[in-house]
Amino acid sequence: MEKWRMTHRFIRHSSKLLFDRRSNLNSHNYVTAPGFGFQRYSRCEECNFRRFFGSAAAAIERNTSFSTLNSDDLSYFKELLGEKSVVEDEDVLLTANTDWMRKYNGTSKLLLQPKTTHEVSQILKYCNSRCLPVVPQGGNTGLVGGSVPVFDEVIINMGSMNNIISLDKVSGILVCEAGCILENLISFLDNHGFIMPLDLGAKGSCQIGGNVSTNAGGLRLVRYGSLHGTVLGLEAVLANGDVIDMLGTLRKDNTGYDLKHLFIGSEGSLGIVTKVSILTPTKLSSVNLAFLACEDYFSCQKLLVEAKRRLGDILSAFEFLDNQSMDLVLNHLEGVRNPLPSSMHNFYVLIETTGSDESYDKEKLEAFLLSSMEGGLISDGVLAQDINQASSFWRIREGLPEALMKAGAVYKYDLSIPVEKMYDLVDEMRIRMGQTARVIAYGHLGDGNLHLNISAPQYDDTILAQIEPYVYEWTSEHKGSISAEHGLGLMKANKIFYSKSPVTVQVMGSIKKLLDPNGILNPYKVLPQSLSSYHCC
Amino acid sequence: MEKWRMTHRFIRHSSKLLFDRRSNLNSHNYVTAPGFGFQRYSRCEECNFRRFFGSAAAAIERNTSFSTLNSDDLSYFKELLGEKSVVEDEDVLLTANTDWMRKYNGTSKLLLQPKTTHEVSQILKYCNSRCLPVVPQGGNTGLVGGSVPVFDEVIINMGSMNNIISLDKVSGILVCEAGCILENLISFLDNHGFIMPLDLGAKGSCQIGGNVSTNAGGLRLVRYGSLHGTVLGLEAVLANGDVIDMLGTLRKDNTGYDLKHLFIGSEGSLGIVTKVSILTPTKLSSVNLAFLACEDYFSCQKLLVEAKRRLGDILSAFEFLDNQSMDLVLNHLEGVRNPLPSSMHNFYVLIETTGSDESYDKEKLEAFLLSSMEGGLISDGVLAQDINQASSFWRIREGLPEALMKAGAVYKYDLSIPVEKMYDLVDEMRIRMGQTARVIAYGHLGDGNLHLNISAPQYDDTILAQIEPYVYEWTSEHKGSISAEHGLGLMKANKIFYSKSPVTVQVMGSIKKLLDPNGILNPYKVLPQSLSSYHCC
Repeated sequence: MEKWRMTHRFIRHSSKLLFDRRSNLNSHNYVTAPGFGFQRYSRCEECNFRRFFGSAAAAIERNTSFSTLNSDDLSYFKELLGEKSVVEDEDVLLTANTDWMRKYNGTSKLLLQPKTTHEVSQILKYCNSRCLPVVPQGGNTGLVGGSVPVFDEVIINMGSMNNIISLDKVSGILVCEAGCILENLISFLDNHGFIMPLDLGAKGSCQIGGNVSTNAGGLRLVRYGSLHGTVLGLEAVLANGDVIDMLGTLRKDNTGYDLKHLFIGSEGSLGIVTKVSILTPTKLSSVNLAFLACEDYFSCQKLLVEAKRRLGDILSAFEFLDNQSMDLVLNHLEGVRNPLPSSMHNFYVLIETTGSDESYDKEKLEAFLLSSMEGGLISDGVLAQDINQASSFWRIREGLPEALMKAGAVYKYDLSIPVEKMYDLVDEMRIRMGQTARVIAYGHLGDGNLHLNISAPQYDDTILAQIEPYVYEWTSEHKGSISAEHGLGLMKANKIFYSKSPVTVQVMGSIKKLLDPNGILNPYKVLPQSLSSYHCC
Repeated sequence: MEKWRMTHRFIRHSSKLLFDRRSNLNSHNYVTAPGFGFQRYSRCEECNFRRFFGSAAAAIERNTSFSTLNSDDLSYFKELLGEKSVVEDEDVLLTANTDWMRKYNGTSKLLLQPKTTHEVSQILKYCNSRCLPVVPQGGNTGLVGGSVPVFDEVIINMGSMNNIISLDKVSGILVCEAGCILENLISFLDNHGFIMPLDLGAKGSCQIGGNVSTNAGGLRLVRYGSLHGTVLGLEAVLANGDVIDMLGTLRKDNTGYDLKHLFIGSEGSLGIVTKVSILTPTKLSSVNLAFLACEDYFSCQKLLVEAKRRLGDILSAFEFLDNQSMDLVLNHLEGVRNPLPSSMHNFYVLIETTGSDESYDKEKLEAFLLSSMEGGLISDGVLAQDINQASSFWRIREGLPEALMKAGAVYKYDLSIPVEKMYDLVDEMRIRMGQTARVIAYGHLGDGNLHLNISAPQYDDTILAQIEPYVYEWTSEHKGSISAEHGLGLMKANKIFYSKSPVTVQVMGSIKKLLDPNGILNPYKVLPQSLSSYHCC
């Protein structure tokens, strides 16, 4: 076991710097993003009304109840929104029809850019009366095909609703429009001494309305909890154009059913979120980051328990990756170095603390790490000494999706599994895949969220058949979730029963039908086709 | 300004002691609880089917669609549950028909005690088919008439479903039945190094199912957030007997609509919660408590902002009371002393910290208090030096409801108001009430939750008319909530529009009708009568 190489010089910079340093790996530049995807659609030769998403997926039929766009529709939208906000430009539409992973492509001919809630309301009222399906779109950074059209749905792009409405500097409650980009909100808050309770790799592109609609998780969940806890209020527009004003700015409000939760995580299928009220934590001045090595998964687990007990008041991230992940990053990302290079370890853990007292936090983390090392939980470790070192540590963890893309074909699974069982699946998949593919595992250990990736030279139905439905069945048997933070979108709409009971899904279907009787909102997504593609128009 | 009288001896005891020391003032002993209530019902002389709740309230008619109990019903229940769990005893029913404040009294002739989810399911299936209304009852500690029958509803008492099912010692996720008493869960967790994320004065009687169904707030919300954030899963039984299994034990699960939130805070009107999965924080070993004086409300507010900034990682409670509250407690509770007796201050604040490092926490709190004193925010203050002193500080804050009851008639309001505006209402009410009544204000300042109490020698319609609807209108104008943490129950069902828009309430009504088409679940509560008393049976 190597000697602990902590240098006793710690990060001496503001949290702003450390939060801002995270690379925008996923800032979603469509020009450079490579085309890939194991479930690439193939266009039906006869028409666009029947589409296949991967060999294992059933064909999806366009809902025959839906209308198609006509010139009267375009005239209506132009009168309502003005010419500039009614976009038919092919290049813009090509981008908006394609998801970030270039895995899903729609054929929409129209993108609308409302600037107010009233405009969103009028659009939906009209589309509902005409039975025109719509897809709400924020930053289009989702990973399950939830934010792009499947067929010819009208795209409602929320990016023009990007005003910050208010910040209560006593309570830290921020109210803003849905189209605000997460990174802009982070910068705005930083100037006022607050932080957003969520942070994502895609922050440079993703919008708060999309974050809320997909119940985005990210890196700070272990400290600040989910959006169900931090979002205090919402304004949303229902399919019929009714504006449902739940834009409260109160930490406590027990007056009737808390309907906002229906819109958090329902991926725009129950209504379009137009405004958000969110509780933002006070910015604390001291941030530390440790990069550690553990020799077995049990040690990672035990380290988590100890970190929660001993660093509970300052712990702000607990991420892990395995040696296959490290190997992948070292081989495929330029300029990345292993901070613990002397030998290859089996597991790596990043522990971030955020507190209000630099010298105390430093001492506390140091004492914790030393005792963990003495206790054999950590075999090696290093503390970031400056902003550059911190960035380089985060680059390893956050660079993994990029490295996977560079390595070839990748089958991605975003799973929640009880922490004790989580790595059993990885071991089983390694045995199952043998030499045909590499199994790369990393994720938010503090939240029980595993990102399982199967990396192969190319996409291959035989490989897919070795993975699915086994991964979903295993997760279901162990009471896990087949989508921890990415949502179901189009990719997993028909797989919901692996994580939810038939009665529960039936109730979801009833609520969908209640709030969107014509099924125009983000069709074919979230719920199984049998429940979401009804014919009512 | 007095010199800071901090003694440099701090609390040196475990969090268990400090958490346990809170007096069970609200442990709800029906024998000693005095009968009082300004909206006491008066029984209709002709029958029990029309009831009045206070002079300002409209008469409530029994829903004529509902059946009344017959001998076949009793036979069915006895066969299903066994004789012992079908209670017709008059004394038991008298207690179960009466709320803790003795303000609301039902006339139910039957109390059922299911022991399993299956039994709850069979009861509801039967009641739904017979159109027999039911009221779910936990510890019956609510303050808005939500947990007692209005007329002859069958009482479903959940107290026999009181098993702890599991505790995951890595993640701290507890799964238990709805009838577990909060204090029992606190004790159980304490033995395993965890705490409940909520704590209430009524913990000795209230049940977790009731806590969840009413979205109980309490003393730890400022630190751990609301139950919408900490409850990870639920099992609930719908009106038709369907069991909806959402009993996940995962921090992240984005597979479809998160329906559990519909049952959190809907006061048993959409389904009966039978099991709960909840994330419990790791118990931290060091707890400190300061009792402070401020000379104006602006200083209290500023102190809160500073406390969040400087103690953010260890702050666990921030409570306040005004000098009228202190005066009331000193006059009506035996053995209570003002910890800062040398002069009467205008405001008092309790700040509790909970952390993992005693000496650090002590130093940090001390430094914060000293600088706050130097800055003029605090005019005096003392730190609890032992468990007895901490208990005596909490006794002042937690003894207020008891002192109010002893002082005479009390009109109670549980309001959420933006912190800056909160005390304006108190000032206005003092002017408004003049010499006719005393205005007592205290609450959870850290959460923006004001408990406004108007104390008078006796109940009087003239006094009530001076308060209502003014308090509700003022709260509504300032975008507050007319029920921060108590819920709407029967008391405020028709007042929901002060805090929620008509469209929002309409959607609530649609969801109620969808999930409970016969309206048998906790009728006359939560929603306005016009939306909840439909005739469908």
